[in-house]
Amino acid sequence: MCAHLSEKSPYKIADLSDSILYLNSDQYFQGYCVLEYKRHVKELFDLSEEERIDLMAHVCRAAKALQAVFSSQKINYELLGNQVPHIHWHLIPRFNTDPAWPNPVWSRPHPPVTLSSQEVQKRIKRIRECL
Amino acid sequence: MCAHLSEKSPYKIADLSDSILYLNSDQYFQGYCVLEYKRHVKELFDLSEEERIDLMAHVCRAAKALQAVFSSQKINYELLGNQVPHIHWHLIPRFNTDPAWPNPVWSRPHPPVTLSSQEVQKRIKRIRECL
Repeated sequence: MCAHLSEKSPYKIADLSDSILYLNSDQYFQGYCVLEYKRHVKELFDLSEEERIDLMAHVCRAAKALQAVFSSQKINYELLGNQVPHIHWHLIPRFNTDPAWPNPVWSRPHPPVTLSSQEVQKRIKRIRECL
Repeated sequence: MCAHLSEKSPYKIADLSDSILYLNSDQYFQGYCVLEYKRHVKELFDLSEEERIDLMAHVCRAAKALQAVFSSQKINYELLGNQVPHIHWHLIPRFNTDPAWPNPVWSRPHPPVTLSSQEVQKRIKRIRECL
């Protein structure tokens, strides 16, 4: 993931100084984003207090934008890292009409839904405008 | 959940001023805890900055204690609230030997594993000592 972090990714929404916000390439869950911390850190408690405060402010800024854009019922915030032990937040707008509701998204295996480049850019633009 | 919050729960580990840390009654995933915010708030971004800073400090304190007690590979931090829209963090020590590894715990439906009162108290005591 450290290597994956890319300024040039077509999924990049915004550089938030300590982290980068991306649209998830799989949009089976509409508006699903990933906020990746730039520095390689494994656990939330490995950050300094100041770093944690900044990161969580960015998590909230992104989550609030997602709710404003998608009018979701709830935002899901998940920091897992079992497969990629580098801090990255899954930020997922949830709807009472989505296919896994009210269960966690992981309860619903599915083939990825990839949008066209045009649709990706349109979705990113809407999120950027609310950040 | 607001009503469920109980000072007298046998699963209560600690009162952290703004929140209460409980051992999850289902211990299929060893050490699984829930940190419940006392005040009824739905989204992380609905907290004031000061409240969010305090809460995340408590989340980290609990997560660090869980890692110290269980020597887990990773802590999973999840704030969902689709079913109960009141801030509560799922804090789950994960092991490369656990039945869902490396996938999220929600990928593994299972009957709940309930410990005896004695085992619950023993586990709580170990976590309290590392808080």
